[in-house]
Amino acid sequence: MAVDENFLRAWRLILKSPEMYRRGFESGMSLPPLPQLSIFSRVYVLGMGGSGIVGDIVSGLKQRDSKVVVEPVKSMSVPPNVGPNSFVVVVSYSGNTTETNWAYIDAFSRNAFVVGVSSGGRLTESMKMKGLEVVEVSKGLQPRYAVPEMVGVVYGILTPFDGFNPREFLKTIDELEAYAKDFEDMTRNAAVELAEKLVDKPVIIIGPEHLSSVLHRFKCQLNENSKHPAYYAVVPEAFHNELEGWTMIEKFSYVFLRSGYEHPMISEALDWAEEHLRKSHADVFRLFVKSSSRQAELVKLIFFTDVVTVALARAKHVDPFALKTIPQLRPLLRKYLP
Amino acid sequence: MAVDENFLRAWRLILKSPEMYRRGFESGMSLPPLPQLSIFSRVYVLGMGGSGIVGDIVSGLKQRDSKVVVEPVKSMSVPPNVGPNSFVVVVSYSGNTTETNWAYIDAFSRNAFVVGVSSGGRLTESMKMKGLEVVEVSKGLQPRYAVPEMVGVVYGILTPFDGFNPREFLKTIDELEAYAKDFEDMTRNAAVELAEKLVDKPVIIIGPEHLSSVLHRFKCQLNENSKHPAYYAVVPEAFHNELEGWTMIEKFSYVFLRSGYEHPMISEALDWAEEHLRKSHADVFRLFVKSSSRQAELVKLIFFTDVVTVALARAKHVDPFALKTIPQLRPLLRKYLP
Repeated sequence: MAVDENFLRAWRLILKSPEMYRRGFESGMSLPPLPQLSIFSRVYVLGMGGSGIVGDIVSGLKQRDSKVVVEPVKSMSVPPNVGPNSFVVVVSYSGNTTETNWAYIDAFSRNAFVVGVSSGGRLTESMKMKGLEVVEVSKGLQPRYAVPEMVGVVYGILTPFDGFNPREFLKTIDELEAYAKDFEDMTRNAAVELAEKLVDKPVIIIGPEHLSSVLHRFKCQLNENSKHPAYYAVVPEAFHNELEGWTMIEKFSYVFLRSGYEHPMISEALDWAEEHLRKSHADVFRLFVKSSSRQAELVKLIFFTDVVTVALARAKHVDPFALKTIPQLRPLLRKYLP
Repeated sequence: MAVDENFLRAWRLILKSPEMYRRGFESGMSLPPLPQLSIFSRVYVLGMGGSGIVGDIVSGLKQRDSKVVVEPVKSMSVPPNVGPNSFVVVVSYSGNTTETNWAYIDAFSRNAFVVGVSSGGRLTESMKMKGLEVVEVSKGLQPRYAVPEMVGVVYGILTPFDGFNPREFLKTIDELEAYAKDFEDMTRNAAVELAEKLVDKPVIIIGPEHLSSVLHRFKCQLNENSKHPAYYAVVPEAFHNELEGWTMIEKFSYVFLRSGYEHPMISEALDWAEEHLRKSHADVFRLFVKSSSRQAELVKLIFFTDVVTVALARAKHVDPFALKTIPQLRPLLRKYLP
């Protein structure tokens, strides 16, 4: 049955994440040396959906004390202050994302330095015609499954900047590879067990701000792979509003993404919030992975939650590859391609 | 009964929004002239919860082509690139918000130019001791009800910057004042009618990115005033993931915030999304207000959704002032005050 086959295919693709990160990283590193690096005050990573999350993840992987700002832009235009001192990475897996193609034109017309990441499409064509560099990624995937490779590419491209350390990145991927081995058995592991408990209710994900890229990725993967409603709340901001809306709690599953790098106040408050929900008989789950660094924690959590979402697809008998609603909308968006 | 009294009090406070904006604006304008305005490359507005939304709203009210970036910071620290060229507005209604007090110390230690907005507390004390300016706002409110005044203050403070036009702002508030008159009858109006339909289900709010501050405000007000679960999705990003998770749709109410300033693609896609949900027998509602400008649309939508949340509190017989969950957590957060 197609659903089962696609489940296997999706699972195997996720297991390949470590080599995808590495392959992408090599391609990104192979870009010709950047011109006058010091002029760039800010890095913008353009993209939508699966391609858009790349900017969030790369921003999360950056060393914490780096003064380089990596700003994801998920829009049809770039912020008004983008100009000749801006370094812009345009990510569109298909090369045919309407919003990203417009944002690229906007950045180009403001004389920003622009590099592309794509598997082809109109973006690649237009950029090559203008003599701009495009790092090409493996073809034939759905954008969300190509995320590890695209993250590797962008991290590789940004290694000349302060806060992007090639050795640290490769060490992180080694750590992920060792971790991934625990998931070769698709029948029983922590991710499958969690997935089976999430079947019936919309999921609310809660976690600290330094994991916000994981929260967003998990939400999107639940939507697209598992056809599941999911929302997230970022702490500490959520302590000031979200909590007060925790009524009708029997309707939701609450998944806490915890980190080994939480501020003590955040830890204490998250513990309190979990306990508060448990005492109110809510379905509460906690995700935590042991890691040697923030960077390793982030990629391991993305891996783990990716697995959860395909396992949930299997448990719900839905196809983790096939999309149903988005493709109906797509022709409408493509009509507006530049 | 306290709930009914508090409903009346909350409603009347919201009706007073126009004068609160104006009063705040005057206080903000009364700040001594800023030193060497041109050195500031970026404006950061610090704050959490009701005080934190001020940065989002002011960023939304800024003229669209202004090159001044207004970046809300909802965190215990400021971004690593904050320095002597950064203009930082610290907003804490109580003056005792732990995260904001830490972020203020962080900004100060990086030699940023710092101005405060507060009704008192530790923040005011510390800033005055250092000879820094604090614009004081009316005491005795809950932060979320003081938002119009705080927005007025910050807009007033920023008028020397490109993209903040005093005359336009006052015109906007005049337009809001005329609009607000439609809501003096608390028994029957469009906001009350909508609220009564939202009682039973968690709310998903959907809208275009230029209204993201309204989406966030509406979510928070549903949480705090109505004790209601609410989440939001920003378009066009949501077209690439959120949609696919629209299953179990009978469990939710979907509220679309529409704008008279949508890109044609966004309009068409939002129309499609509304229709898609309607055909699937979802509870779908559309909010739209006629306005003479983007700025006026934004404050009118905030006003309207504020009214919806207190009307929903009445319909659910909950107190729009009293908080239940957040105050349990507050001592834990305050323990970490600097």
